Amino acid sequence: MEVPLESLKEYIRFSSVSTDSAHAQGMRGARAYAKKLLEQLGFKVEVVETDLHPILLAERHGSPDWPHVVLYGHYDVQPADPFSLWTDKPFEPTVRGGRLYGRGAADNKGPTIVHMAALARVLEKNPGLRLNITYVIEGEEEIGSPSMSTFFDKYAERLAKADFMLVSDTGIPNTEQIVITTALRGLVDLEIKLRGPKSDLHSGIHGGAVYNPLQALMEICASLHNPDGSVNVPGFYDDVVPVFDWERHELKCYPETLESYRQLLDVSAFYPANGLSPLEAVRFGPTLEFNGIGGGYQGEGSKTVIPSEAFAKITCRLVANQDPVKVQKQIIDVVHSRCPEGISLSIREGGIAEAYLVVPPDRPNTPVDQPPALASAFRAADVAIADQFGRVPIYLREGGSIPVIADFKKRAGLDAIMIGLFTPLDNLHAPDESFSLELMDNAIFAFERIFESIAKS
Amino acid sequence: MEVPLESLKEYIRFSSVSTDSAHAQGMRGARAYAKKLLEQLGFKVEVVETDLHPILLAERHGSPDWPHVVLYGHYDVQPADPFSLWTDKPFEPTVRGGRLYGRGAADNKGPTIVHMAALARVLEKNPGLRLNITYVIEGEEEIGSPSMSTFFDKYAERLAKADFMLVSDTGIPNTEQIVITTALRGLVDLEIKLRGPKSDLHSGIHGGAVYNPLQALMEICASLHNPDGSVNVPGFYDDVVPVFDWERHELKCYPETLESYRQLLDVSAFYPANGLSPLEAVRFGPTLEFNGIGGGYQGEGSKTVIPSEAFAKITCRLVANQDPVKVQKQIIDVVHSRCPEGISLSIREGGIAEAYLVVPPDRPNTPVDQPPALASAFRAADVAIADQFGRVPIYLREGGSIPVIADFKKRAGLDAIMIGLFTPLDNLHAPDESFSLELMDNAIFAFERIFESIAKS
Repeated sequence: MEVPLESLKEYIRFSSVSTDSAHAQGMRGARAYAKKLLEQLGFKVEVVETDLHPILLAERHGSPDWPHVVLYGHYDVQPADPFSLWTDKPFEPTVRGGRLYGRGAADNKGPTIVHMAALARVLEKNPGLRLNITYVIEGEEEIGSPSMSTFFDKYAERLAKADFMLVSDTGIPNTEQIVITTALRGLVDLEIKLRGPKSDLHSGIHGGAVYNPLQALMEICASLHNPDGSVNVPGFYDDVVPVFDWERHELKCYPETLESYRQLLDVSAFYPANGLSPLEAVRFGPTLEFNGIGGGYQGEGSKTVIPSEAFAKITCRLVANQDPVKVQKQIIDVVHSRCPEGISLSIREGGIAEAYLVVPPDRPNTPVDQPPALASAFRAADVAIADQFGRVPIYLREGGSIPVIADFKKRAGLDAIMIGLFTPLDNLHAPDESFSLELMDNAIFAFERIFESIAKS
Repeated sequence: MEVPLESLKEYIRFSSVSTDSAHAQGMRGARAYAKKLLEQLGFKVEVVETDLHPILLAERHGSPDWPHVVLYGHYDVQPADPFSLWTDKPFEPTVRGGRLYGRGAADNKGPTIVHMAALARVLEKNPGLRLNITYVIEGEEEIGSPSMSTFFDKYAERLAKADFMLVSDTGIPNTEQIVITTALRGLVDLEIKLRGPKSDLHSGIHGGAVYNPLQALMEICASLHNPDGSVNVPGFYDDVVPVFDWERHELKCYPETLESYRQLLDVSAFYPANGLSPLEAVRFGPTLEFNGIGGGYQGEGSKTVIPSEAFAKITCRLVANQDPVKVQKQIIDVVHSRCPEGISLSIREGGIAEAYLVVPPDRPNTPVDQPPALASAFRAADVAIADQFGRVPIYLREGGSIPVIADFKKRAGLDAIMIGLFTPLDNLHAPDESFSLELMDNAIFAFERIFESIAKS
């Protein structure tokens, strides 16, 4: 493998925007390039066709007695528009101030190159490395991994032979402090649609006789939270896994203060999050969030109508052990029960995703049946990161969702060690996405150690 | 004057859409035609220039001892689109099934022609009719009469010499039952704009830490009504004029049942209007109505953001004696007091209009200082309508607003006798607007009697 920076530049040049068919060539290019790199590393690569973008399934298998790790990444990227906000062109990677700029530099092409470069060094030193590796690189992560379900139908059994996963698709506070993500939140999506009169009515002639669907919508939605910020849906918190003392301790090591976080968000005050601090709330608490509302007149000024229809788009972030099917039903039931007479209600049930939680070894709540290979790998990662970065990693739950991680657990029984490599400066999903070259170097060294350690376990 | 139907057809052919400068020629044509008709009736017509559409001010003045009536109408019409929903072209009037179809047929060209045709007959019989008439026909009623304020600055003193107004710009339940409208609701317009974080945030990474402006908006707006349907704004009902027993009695004569009204609105249940029946609520009660709300993602499906901004457009319909300035401030104050920390609030203060109320003579609450000429004219209208239509008129407050009527009262001290001539079948402001030819005939006869009676008072 050539110099990692050059490989990453080459990888970025393929505009692999999965959501936009205009980038079909970029998708093909990125896929072919990733396949070539994997083959250079000695993997046997299968291109698994899907309804949309094929998945790369690469294998380096020796003896079944060797440890077996699954690496996961994605070769697709977010759209780059608005292009005018980029300093340089998004698919023409450039280095400035110790960072490589380009769409996908951090999410997820940089971390993928880190993994591959580390593997290249390890295998160069020891071509007979006693480590089975299954490398899955999909092309639909940025659009919700719709093809992974079918992929699991066919390959889950094969994947289940592995011991655990290694993933780098989560965040860290800065280039000096690595975070190992121990949980991802789940998701529930639904949309409330209300209808009052069959068409907009004159608010003078009929105002007072008709339940305004905007009013009904706002009354229903306003009822979904309590003044303390908790979600007012019966049963919502029933299955929530509590926060453990060691997790609060880890959070205290996280280099973010309430004031620095408030400034980052640029708000004058935080949400009263049900007794959690804001830094806790985004990691340990479930939410019910309104993503969009609408109805009635949308233009300038005023229009004196009683509108006919209103909608609210709602998503929940769920924490470990909450059942998204159950929560979705709880919300639907409560919305039905709070809908006033004279208003008809329909609900679009959107996608759901389970939360994911893995507990590192040697914690009070570590499952007693945690596989030894997983525990060893956690310890190996801890040591390698502490040595390379001069600081032990922080073990923290994260607020975002990567549904495919829970699916790997559910479908193939694999837990994930998620070693974050994104910083807030990386501008994920935004213009001027970049990846720190210093972090890249350090991470390659750390992963080199990690691969060597887990091969010996 | 030629046959009224032909005059009305001619008047409709001018596409006098005041809101759209593309119809400047139609505006000019309608104005010139109305001026010509007034001149044929012997009026001295002044074309009063305004910033937008000139106002016709026509006078037929004899002795200052004669009774003096102000007639009001408007030569502008609503836009006709969507054109595809019209059976025939909106500005090519056609007669079908006893109705004349065309934009403006009912609002307000038909009623204007009724008044003029009645005057023509009266003056033909009695050219020396002892009646001073000031005829005001404006061209901006459909856009909120913005130029009338300046008009009053110049002409209020002259108008104040009249005794009362006669207006036909309100509704009736059907062509057999005339309603004399005794009140119009006032209006308060405002828009709440909330801002949370400075830009949309990722609902996973930051969900739980930030007050979602959509949630804040819905909580504030939901707080503006009580479960009984009343408006939950301190002081809102302080100055509300009560409903009088005779008004409830009049409403009982109104040919609409709860069931027929429910079917008309096509709702499964009415709004719980603070103890008023739906038919009372739209006439006797003030409202606070949401006309439009929005914020966050508006497309299909879902987007997991915490939006940055939200808005709600609110208008109130006020009843007599409520001060719109005071009510607007009450709402603004309450919205400010209910806005949570972390959310910044701005409010657009839109237009306001006072409600209008006139009490016919011989009622328990008739003002003791009601001018005799007004009382006589009410009695004359009652008799003429009862004779011509075979039924006494119903005296009822109406839910809509015609701000200029309250302005005539405030600026020139003139009360209005509002004799409705629109039916629900007339499709005001909608495709296939029409005017009943039978009603037109009967109304001309009735107004002929009314003009003759008031000239003798």
